[in-house]
Amino acid sequence: MRSQMQKAINDVIFGTDTPAGKRFDLFLIYAILASVLVVILDTVMSLHDSYHRLFFLLEWFFTAIFTIEYALRIYSSPLRWQYIRSFYGIVDFVSILPSYLSLFFVGSSYLVVVRLLRVLRIFRVLKLVRYLNEANVLMRSMRQARRKILLFFCVVLVLTTIFGSLMYVIEGRENGFTSIPKSIYWAVITITTVGYGDITPQSALGQTLAAIMMLIGYSIIAVPTGIITAELAVEINRQREIRECKYCHAISHDADAVYCRKCGKKLPEQDDEAES
Amino acid sequence: MRSQMQKAINDVIFGTDTPAGKRFDLFLIYAILASVLVVILDTVMSLHDSYHRLFFLLEWFFTAIFTIEYALRIYSSPLRWQYIRSFYGIVDFVSILPSYLSLFFVGSSYLVVVRLLRVLRIFRVLKLVRYLNEANVLMRSMRQARRKILLFFCVVLVLTTIFGSLMYVIEGRENGFTSIPKSIYWAVITITTVGYGDITPQSALGQTLAAIMMLIGYSIIAVPTGIITAELAVEINRQREIRECKYCHAISHDADAVYCRKCGKKLPEQDDEAES
Amino acid sequence: MRSQMQKAINDVIFGTDTPAGKRFDLFLIYAILASVLVVILDTVMSLHDSYHRLFFLLEWFFTAIFTIEYALRIYSSPLRWQYIRSFYGIVDFVSILPSYLSLFFVGSSYLVVVRLLRVLRIFRVLKLVRYLNEANVLMRSMRQARRKILLFFCVVLVLTTIFGSLMYVIEGRENGFTSIPKSIYWAVITITTVGYGDITPQSALGQTLAAIMMLIGYSIIAVPTGIITAELAVEINRQREIRECKYCHAISHDADAVYCRKCGKKLPEQDDEAES
Amino acid sequence: MRSQMQKAINDVIFGTDTPAGKRFDLFLIYAILASVLVVILDTVMSLHDSYHRLFFLLEWFFTAIFTIEYALRIYSSPLRWQYIRSFYGIVDFVSILPSYLSLFFVGSSYLVVVRLLRVLRIFRVLKLVRYLNEANVLMRSMRQARRKILLFFCVVLVLTTIFGSLMYVIEGRENGFTSIPKSIYWAVITITTVGYGDITPQSALGQTLAAIMMLIGYSIIAVPTGIITAELAVEINRQREIRECKYCHAISHDADAVYCRKCGKKLPEQDDEAES
Repeated sequence: MRSQMQKAINDVIFGTDTPAGKRFDLFLIYAILASVLVVILDTVMSLHDSYHRLFFLLEWFFTAIFTIEYALRIYSSPLRWQYIRSFYGIVDFVSILPSYLSLFFVGSSYLVVVRLLRVLRIFRVLKLVRYLNEANVLMRSMRQARRKILLFFCVVLVLTTIFGSLMYVIEGRENGFTSIPKSIYWAVITITTVGYGDITPQSALGQTLAAIMMLIGYSIIAVPTGIITAELAVEINRQREIRECKYCHAISHDADAVYCRKCGKKLPEQDDEAES
Repeated sequence: MRSQMQKAINDVIFGTDTPAGKRFDLFLIYAILASVLVVILDTVMSLHDSYHRLFFLLEWFFTAIFTIEYALRIYSSPLRWQYIRSFYGIVDFVSILPSYLSLFFVGSSYLVVVRLLRVLRIFRVLKLVRYLNEANVLMRSMRQARRKILLFFCVVLVLTTIFGSLMYVIEGRENGFTSIPKSIYWAVITITTVGYGDITPQSALGQTLAAIMMLIGYSIIAVPTGIITAELAVEINRQREIRECKYCHAISHDADAVYCRKCGKKLPEQDDEAES
Repeated sequence: MRSQMQKAINDVIFGTDTPAGKRFDLFLIYAILASVLVVILDTVMSLHDSYHRLFFLLEWFFTAIFTIEYALRIYSSPLRWQYIRSFYGIVDFVSILPSYLSLFFVGSSYLVVVRLLRVLRIFRVLKLVRYLNEANVLMRSMRQARRKILLFFCVVLVLTTIFGSLMYVIEGRENGFTSIPKSIYWAVITITTVGYGDITPQSALGQTLAAIMMLIGYSIIAVPTGIITAELAVEINRQREIRECKYCHAISHDADAVYCRKCGKKLPEQDDEAES
Repeated sequence: MRSQMQKAINDVIFGTDTPAGKRFDLFLIYAILASVLVVILDTVMSLHDSYHRLFFLLEWFFTAIFTIEYALRIYSSPLRWQYIRSFYGIVDFVSILPSYLSLFFVGSSYLVVVRLLRVLRIFRVLKLVRYLNEANVLMRSMRQARRKILLFFCVVLVLTTIFGSLMYVIEGRENGFTSIPKSIYWAVITITTVGYGDITPQSALGQTLAAIMMLIGYSIIAVPTGIITAELAVEINRQREIRECKYCHAISHDADAVYCRKCGKKLPEQDDEAES
């Protein structure tokens, strides 16, 4: 049986409806952003030299807070293992890990930026229903598109490997294509149109092949865009059809419409479609 | 009570229907473009050396004109404070500010290019109704898409921060990733496919991570495109449905159609849907 | 009154239906491609050294052919001035001009590559109806989208001018931003995600501004894509609706469908919708 | 008449239904991936120095396996010539060729990465029906779009040739534009927004022209995206319409819907639409 205290803590930490719960969540978000900022600023040489001591203290201060919070979450959770193994449970744990690891491995403390993932809670916390709705539209389109995107990535991988190897044979070590993995790295840079220019073909044949690759990359960049756009269009249209007037049963209202476009009566409010 | 003079000035400066008002607006647009051109040309060394005196005089000449114009606008406006705090009121003020600031701060005079924002009035002035219509379609789509775009930017920011920090740990100071802010700058360059090449990963692990990032960036560049396209398609279709034949009530006419596609009678002209 | 000879020449040169006219057009296309190839290869140093004499002779040989052809076109055309001032008439003239200009101005001979524009005739000549159809779909979408694209370019121009000037003030001459025009050039490179890296911001503030610009560019690159996609979708759907079965009057057939999808009877062939 | 043995081998090698056939196909896929990995790793200097002997033996081991497999395929195939001249027959042959060629031509062994194309069989083998369906949607959209894409490429080629020649005249040899082919290479880099930065315009006129080219490239990059998106949207909608409820004949079900959205009864499963 859960103690009274566990329940009280649970209400504050996990609750999003009570004023105490809301205030706690807001405080947490500011603490997360502040702790990430501290780590980022500590890597800037000029600031590091002047304020390293302060940054060091602040980082351990935030780590202490998040450690206590994590312990309280485990303590107060009615379904402990379920929380620990949930997405947010793992993120919470990984967020405090780098600070402790930095005692043994230099450099690992910078990985506390994964704390940023915790901010994703902001949407759940602040009941930003509209944003959740939009996020859902995006997520559902992505889910519909995932197989096509995966297929597309397989094609890109095969293409970059074949083109990369060809360039390795054509250009060779002396022109910067020192190995096939490096040539594949170049092929990815070229096909995604990033184009650093740290490795570039020097021979006429290599430049011709590179130009062909760019034109191919130029067309296949259109494929993921096409996939996502087409799925988004379906999803947005469905979203419009979902909003039905209770009086005249007209559908196809915009996401931000308040009155029915046929009979002018008030539309039902959009439900809280948050993912639980 | 407003004097006769105030009313007369107001008609010329704010009016867009009278010949005098139109001529004034056109003169203003040319003056704005000329003043911006003068500032831009003055920064070109070879021209600066030969014509600096001329450019200097011209700039103060235009600044004088715009200052007088701004004063007249305030003087003649029936709702003074409303004008001063309106979007165009602020732009008008900011457009003359840099010239005066340049007396105290060297270099600030170049900021007079914000005057270009005043040219946006051209659309209102010249009653370019069709363009206004198109602009409205674009604006409304943008407004519908703004929350999804904002969500998308949050995701991009979190991604670039996490990837930037990872690269800082992997590549380190000696390979150009001198701080996490600089690594985030690199991550933005990479994920947007700009790819300057001023900072590039040198280690095998760093290059692998960069390649993965490019491929991710390659797919998520599709998301804002998809969002805007889907919203634009909805908006363009709606625009077509709005044009209804008065005789047979057929809809779905193209924006530039003149006759009804069903009964061949003349369609009503597109109304002046300008934003007031 | 036109002589018999004029009519005969006209049939061969302008005609596309007679075997002689077709053979002449095909010969012309090969001559154009060959003449452009000659000019291009002549600029490659190693080939220039060995074959310059040959290239020189070939170029004047092709120029002579095209000059005679142009003269014959004028001579045989029933509406001389109309031909001379038409799009293809001007292209025909401009195609032979650079060779003669090269007698006076060194370097101008390379401009004969504008002859390539003459190859656009290939579509008309070879009666590539399907391609003409597709080209028409593309052209009509472009025409529908032109005002939105123009608006978009105005916004991009204003943005690049303002951002370029800001960077000129922030980075200054010592970091490569030697004048506002050059800074605008950098802004265009950045906002279009080309990213040469010949000019890059060095200061922290400049890099932050550049990163913001990239993210803005990243979203607004979506706008022209969205516009063209939305217009193309409308046009492709209309194209499908145009193909109507003569027997059951079903519409919405694919562009390459041969049989009606409802009653299975043969569909009417796509008409020769060439632009006249 | 085919021997019993031929039939047995055929069942294992070409069969995808029997357990033996499936196991063989899976083994083959792992062998292909392993052999490609060996070739790739052998080009990395540090690994080459330590393990070259091992890599060499492994490569010939895999080549031996694939050679035997190819021989068995020819031996057991009922329609020998049809197999040899089929797409997969040619890929199978080309996959073993580079290893033997490497005995005569140094460097050709790296071309065994074309073996990756054999992995495309994975989709047929593993009966990944859903993926096949998605691939079909992509393929059909591509086929619908191929003529428009081809047209688009012609326009891009003409544009890059003309712009490249212009830049050759303007910038000249001393600024890196050493020949028209190289200038065309630069034009492709610029118009596809890759932007290596290995060749960049230095003169004011050249930079202005380059900026104009980028803005043009920026808009026409939208064209293939628009084409593919529009065709994909048509295809995805058709795919949804194909799924019809056997009970109430409602259509427009999502690709992953299991129950009818109107009457709630189970939908027919998606058929194995694999390309034979």
